[in-house]
Amino acid sequence: MEVEVKFKVLFDEIKEKIERLGAELVREEVQEDLYFDIPLPNLLRIRRIVNTGEVILGYKEIKDKRNEEFDEIEVEVKDFDKIRDILKRLGFKEDIWVKKHRHVYRLGNVTFELNRVEGLGDFLDIEVISDNVEDAKREIWKVARRLGLKEEDVEPRLYQELIKEKGST
Amino acid sequence: MEVEVKFKVLFDEIKEKIERLGAELVREEVQEDLYFDIPLPNLLRIRRIVNTGEVILGYKEIKDKRNEEFDEIEVEVKDFDKIRDILKRLGFKEDIWVKKHRHVYRLGNVTFELNRVEGLGDFLDIEVISDNVEDAKREIWKVARRLGLKEEDVEPRLYQELIKEKGST
Repeated sequence: MEVEVKFKVLFDEIKEKIERLGAELVREEVQEDLYFDIPLPNLLRIRRIVNTGEVILGYKEIKDKRNEEFDEIEVEVKDFDKIRDILKRLGFKEDIWVKKHRHVYRLGNVTFELNRVEGLGDFLDIEVISDNVEDAKREIWKVARRLGLKEEDVEPRLYQELIKEKGST
Repeated sequence: MEVEVKFKVLFDEIKEKIERLGAELVREEVQEDLYFDIPLPNLLRIRRIVNTGEVILGYKEIKDKRNEEFDEIEVEVKDFDKIRDILKRLGFKEDIWVKKHRHVYRLGNVTFELNRVEGLGDFLDIEVISDNVEDAKREIWKVARRLGLKEEDVEPRLYQELIKEKGST
């Protein structure tokens, strides 16, 4: 199970704090995610990682109301346009693009995904892979507090929900 | 458009004839195809090429009544079990396995796929990629006749149909 909490942050400030914690920069990615219109709590997307050329088909099942617990399957695919075409012909409708610049840091078994999301601003996902959700959340909140993050900084909505809400105002 | 005609053949006899035509052996593959249950005339399968480790997701639309004209999209995928799991969770039901040992020959723009299909016997698919279906068929039949193949050797049914018919007798 992938357990993660998303916080609204200020990029430069939180980046410095993460680095001061001793977390290691694992990679930097420019991600363009195309989401297909399947019913929540499930998500289907093709991710294109622009700077590496990788393409990843991803399927997620959201397991809780706060969008913090996910069952996720990802598989690398060779060609973005072809998998997009196959999904379209199978009847899946394209829904929304989420584009972001991501820095990935790691500290022990905690992963920090610091995202500058096009049109939305900056967010930090703190993630732990674990079958024990309570333990994972305790671990996430322990580092979150060390970064000065509080309950009111949590953003429970999905990026695609935020983009849609923004588009409709 | 992929245009192909399938013939019931005797493996060794037709192999020798193909080689005598001057066709070049391009590759040999052990293919295990898992078909999903989507409505005809469309086909969805994951192909595992056992001897190379490749995995290919394929979607075909059959364009004619004789199963000779196909619109096909194929994309390489990194992991058989993961794409299988994603398709299952998206609601696709597994239908049938087709396993075969294939020799692929080429002569000009004609491709010969000589298949020993598990449980079914030997078949030769003669294939031409062309947007002109009539020209493609003329070309296919020209070489078919040189191999001694006749209209009565044609097998219009799909491999998965043949396997199902066999299973139900």
